[in-house]
Amino acid sequence: MTRKMWGLIPVLDCSQLLRFCPSQCKPHVLRIATPDPRVDSPLCTMSDEAFVTLATTDSYAKGALVLGQSLRNHNTSKKLVVLVGPHVAEPCREALGSIFDEVCLVDVLDSGDVAHLALMKRPDLGVTFTKLHCWTLTHYSKCVFMDADTLVLSNVDELFEREELSAAPDPGWPDCFNSGVFVFRPSNETHEQLLTFCAENGSFDGGDQGVLNSFFNTWATADISKHLPFIYNLSSIAIYSYLPAFKQYGHNAKVVHFLGAVKPWNYSYDSQRGEMKGHSLSPGQGSLHPDYLLMWWQLYTRQVLPLLQKAFGETDFSSGLEESDQNGKLSEEVSEQPPSPSPASSSSPPPPPQKRSSEERKQRWEAGQIDYLGDDAFANIEQKLDSFLK
Amino acid sequence: MTRKMWGLIPVLDCSQLLRFCPSQCKPHVLRIATPDPRVDSPLCTMSDEAFVTLATTDSYAKGALVLGQSLRNHNTSKKLVVLVGPHVAEPCREALGSIFDEVCLVDVLDSGDVAHLALMKRPDLGVTFTKLHCWTLTHYSKCVFMDADTLVLSNVDELFEREELSAAPDPGWPDCFNSGVFVFRPSNETHEQLLTFCAENGSFDGGDQGVLNSFFNTWATADISKHLPFIYNLSSIAIYSYLPAFKQYGHNAKVVHFLGAVKPWNYSYDSQRGEMKGHSLSPGQGSLHPDYLLMWWQLYTRQVLPLLQKAFGETDFSSGLEESDQNGKLSEEVSEQPPSPSPASSSSPPPPPQKRSSEERKQRWEAGQIDYLGDDAFANIEQKLDSFLK
Repeated sequence: MTRKMWGLIPVLDCSQLLRFCPSQCKPHVLRIATPDPRVDSPLCTMSDEAFVTLATTDSYAKGALVLGQSLRNHNTSKKLVVLVGPHVAEPCREALGSIFDEVCLVDVLDSGDVAHLALMKRPDLGVTFTKLHCWTLTHYSKCVFMDADTLVLSNVDELFEREELSAAPDPGWPDCFNSGVFVFRPSNETHEQLLTFCAENGSFDGGDQGVLNSFFNTWATADISKHLPFIYNLSSIAIYSYLPAFKQYGHNAKVVHFLGAVKPWNYSYDSQRGEMKGHSLSPGQGSLHPDYLLMWWQLYTRQVLPLLQKAFGETDFSSGLEESDQNGKLSEEVSEQPPSPSPASSSSPPPPPQKRSSEERKQRWEAGQIDYLGDDAFANIEQKLDSFLK
Repeated sequence: MTRKMWGLIPVLDCSQLLRFCPSQCKPHVLRIATPDPRVDSPLCTMSDEAFVTLATTDSYAKGALVLGQSLRNHNTSKKLVVLVGPHVAEPCREALGSIFDEVCLVDVLDSGDVAHLALMKRPDLGVTFTKLHCWTLTHYSKCVFMDADTLVLSNVDELFEREELSAAPDPGWPDCFNSGVFVFRPSNETHEQLLTFCAENGSFDGGDQGVLNSFFNTWATADISKHLPFIYNLSSIAIYSYLPAFKQYGHNAKVVHFLGAVKPWNYSYDSQRGEMKGHSLSPGQGSLHPDYLLMWWQLYTRQVLPLLQKAFGETDFSSGLEESDQNGKLSEEVSEQPPSPSPASSSSPPPPPQKRSSEERKQRWEAGQIDYLGDDAFANIEQKLDSFLK
């Protein structure tokens, strides 16, 4: 097995990974040492303060893993908590458990409480209700919520000196705060007030940011200490809207937030060359900053992937195929939808296969248009993998 | 002369207007009553507080006229001051004088003071130095600066309750304030400090916003009362970056700011139909909100154009041509450069004329690509105008 053969790191849902890793497919694994993060932070067990994040899909679980590890790498003294939705696969939860102090399953549908009632009234706000659940973490006196698409660039424990509700301005409408990073005080009373507010008023933007801005509606005018500096929630899309300001102040960034539809895990990374692949990385509206994207991927490759390998039973799903062989190349997953059923169990007949060139297939694959039932069917990929593992 | 013939209102530099209105070209003028704005506001002469704006080109002078008139229409009790650069034509200054209490010519090049010295050190910051001149208006105790591409939607005299330096956040990098609207206290000392700072440090964005944010560098963190609500400087480009927030809060807008490269005066307006023409008005990044654009144009057409007519000697340069005749249609000026010399006085020979279709010429004209030396030469347009005025 040459170095070259294993150069490409695919990004897959954990559930997809499981499909690619049947029992008969067990390549040798180059183990990378995985430090026990909780041993690194002797103070963390004494803290009644916590960073909290949320993963409602396996993709966001990857983001949460990177975020959690970035907090560990910068020696946080706080506890780490991740709320997971019911769609997150068990091995993903296991990997999360090796970075986070608590992995809390939140299934609003199954709860019989006021949250469930609120959800029945506003079924469009499912993820919002899951996020609002963070207020129930009342065994902590204070928490900092961070979205799973954020990355910490330095120790940010000083955020706990702030009071509820502290947050940074949103670059789109700067009298709103961005709800990707905020300081809050867990309280069942606040939680119920939020749920009631949410059920009665909905959300002006269809998400938690609308609800939280309407509820904490004096943020823009009442107390400057509740305005976190923008460098604690630097939206990567804001970089290009006022580039001179980024050049002037961006080097102080402490938290980068990969806002927008395309997330770091939607890109491909060439671990041999240490560079991004597949997507255009030219600066512009909607593209993520290449440096931050590289940081995310380096952390993912070095520290998160080994945990996923462990959780998924030592199977080396981190390996890619020869760069020169385009047909079987594994790549990123773009859709945030729950994975399609395995072709083997699909009841509908597969469509007639369309013949495409290797280059065309590669492009479609990289754009997330994976031909699950045709050329990219599980059986074909398995066959390709087997041919390399002989 | 039919109504239809006079439906299109061209937008031209005052200097261009002069070229289009030779003495032999005097159509009938439909006069629109122009109230004396200073009579409307009995309190204004008692005020030692002023709104201040800046016009360095004839195009921005049009913006300043609309802004000033919008302040009058909403019954401001404050004085109105406009700083004009040396490139603004005399009739434009005259029109400005009928709305503003003071028209101050600021020619940093001709000044022998510290401003001139600063300019010699940083010749790239000419307009910035002109804007900073507002701090020398020491016969006022407090002022509100407003860029000439802003429009007031209601009385905003309450801004004078704020202290220096109050401003609204910039939607691009929200820890910076946007310098399109700010409260300040005139002071020669502050003026000199600003000039020295500017000469020594330059501007991180090449303009006044960079300088002012570096100088008043505690704005983001020190005092919430110095954060003007975003509705006092609603950037029209921010509307589409977080549309739900605009829908939620936009109806409270008090000042709209036409940020970006394309300004209201770069559009065309059909006064008969009361609608915008020529440019795509589909919502999106970089386009201005159609409602605000219409407000600007309605005010310009009804209240500013008559003043320009008066200043330019009753010549009806407000008239357009038949809609069905595309060739001679007057339209907007896009470039902010000082106007090119008149073709008649040009020493270089005109390039060979390129034959284009009427539609193509219309499109190029509307995109600001005016063929000054070819089909759109002064002589040709004059001939066309004459043919209509026979």
